[in-house]
Amino acid sequence: MAKVNIGEQTYVLPMATTILGSRLKDRPNFMALGWLTRVNSKPPMLGVAVSQGHASHRAIAETGEFSVNFPTVAMVEITDYVGLVSGKRVDKSELFNLFYGELSNAPMISECPLAMECKLVKTVELPTNSFFIGEIVGAYSEEQFLTEGVPDIKKINPFLLTMPDNGYWSVGELIGRAWSDGESMRKRIKRTDTGP
Amino acid sequence: MAKVNIGEQTYVLPMATTILGSRLKDRPNFMALGWLTRVNSKPPMLGVAVSQGHASHRAIAETGEFSVNFPTVAMVEITDYVGLVSGKRVDKSELFNLFYGELSNAPMISECPLAMECKLVKTVELPTNSFFIGEIVGAYSEEQFLTEGVPDIKKINPFLLTMPDNGYWSVGELIGRAWSDGESMRKRIKRTDTGP
Repeated sequence: MAKVNIGEQTYVLPMATTILGSRLKDRPNFMALGWLTRVNSKPPMLGVAVSQGHASHRAIAETGEFSVNFPTVAMVEITDYVGLVSGKRVDKSELFNLFYGELSNAPMISECPLAMECKLVKTVELPTNSFFIGEIVGAYSEEQFLTEGVPDIKKINPFLLTMPDNGYWSVGELIGRAWSDGESMRKRIKRTDTGP
Repeated sequence: MAKVNIGEQTYVLPMATTILGSRLKDRPNFMALGWLTRVNSKPPMLGVAVSQGHASHRAIAETGEFSVNFPTVAMVEITDYVGLVSGKRVDKSELFNLFYGELSNAPMISECPLAMECKLVKTVELPTNSFFIGEIVGAYSEEQFLTEGVPDIKKINPFLLTMPDNGYWSVGELIGRAWSDGESMRKRIKRTDTGP
């Protein structure tokens, strides 16, 4: 089949849907966030890309702290809502029950099955966004969402985002095991390898 | 339910599974990659976090170019394989059919329904990883994977990664619409807002 050039405005497919928490002028603030990733193994760090015009951008730059909260499928409406309205005009501090870990400017959402608090270690300035890199200083869940002590995606039931079609998607079925499914192929190729 | 601290080694839940392409000593090289995100709107940029010991790390640092390829569920085994073996020891250049766009050091995988070529614009050095930020200079798909000209996740059928349980997952059902599902909540709250 012929490849077609679909232009440059393409996206990572799919993205996790999260809610970014921060403290803006002593008031907890929240926005929907899909542009994030782990960026470092040791110590654990993640990065979030935030548009420079957002209230959350100023909040993180000022306090040097933020939280990343993973909403469940039942929270689609409220997650979308915090992405539609700006903390500059609307007080979003009463929308959720909040809790705190070690950081006082990283409000975490009790209703979210998984939440992380991060301390800013580096800010990368880009043309329209800033990429805030934070060290994960604490992560919180509940026993009901864990299996053998680690977050279980089927119990957490998070949702995904696709752009530019703007769809939210559930997670499907387990289809394989990482660092395992390629093992037989590795052995097969090794057997036929005649060496250097 | 009581929140429990699950430690700092937690991950974005879930991650997209991709194959990172690069050119190592004039030979195409590939590795499985789950740590990536869009980082800038205009121009479109994405970032990939690569462990400093990986062959792909040296390749990207040397050539300043890379590709991001989105495998389909049928490619689980080969995707996992390229994550298990190092380009330092194994020649992975013959595993896929390749094509090129504008960049000569960003080999793209024909078997992947979606592929992007990126030109390095910034490298962020972190303790164990480097975060390579690239401008997306071209993205390629096939008509069969598009709906109204944009990538259709159900046609592409990519898969997800969870850590630390190391599961691969399919994408589930459409459960909502972004920048839309929160609209009625926005109107409801606006009506009851007594103003400043």
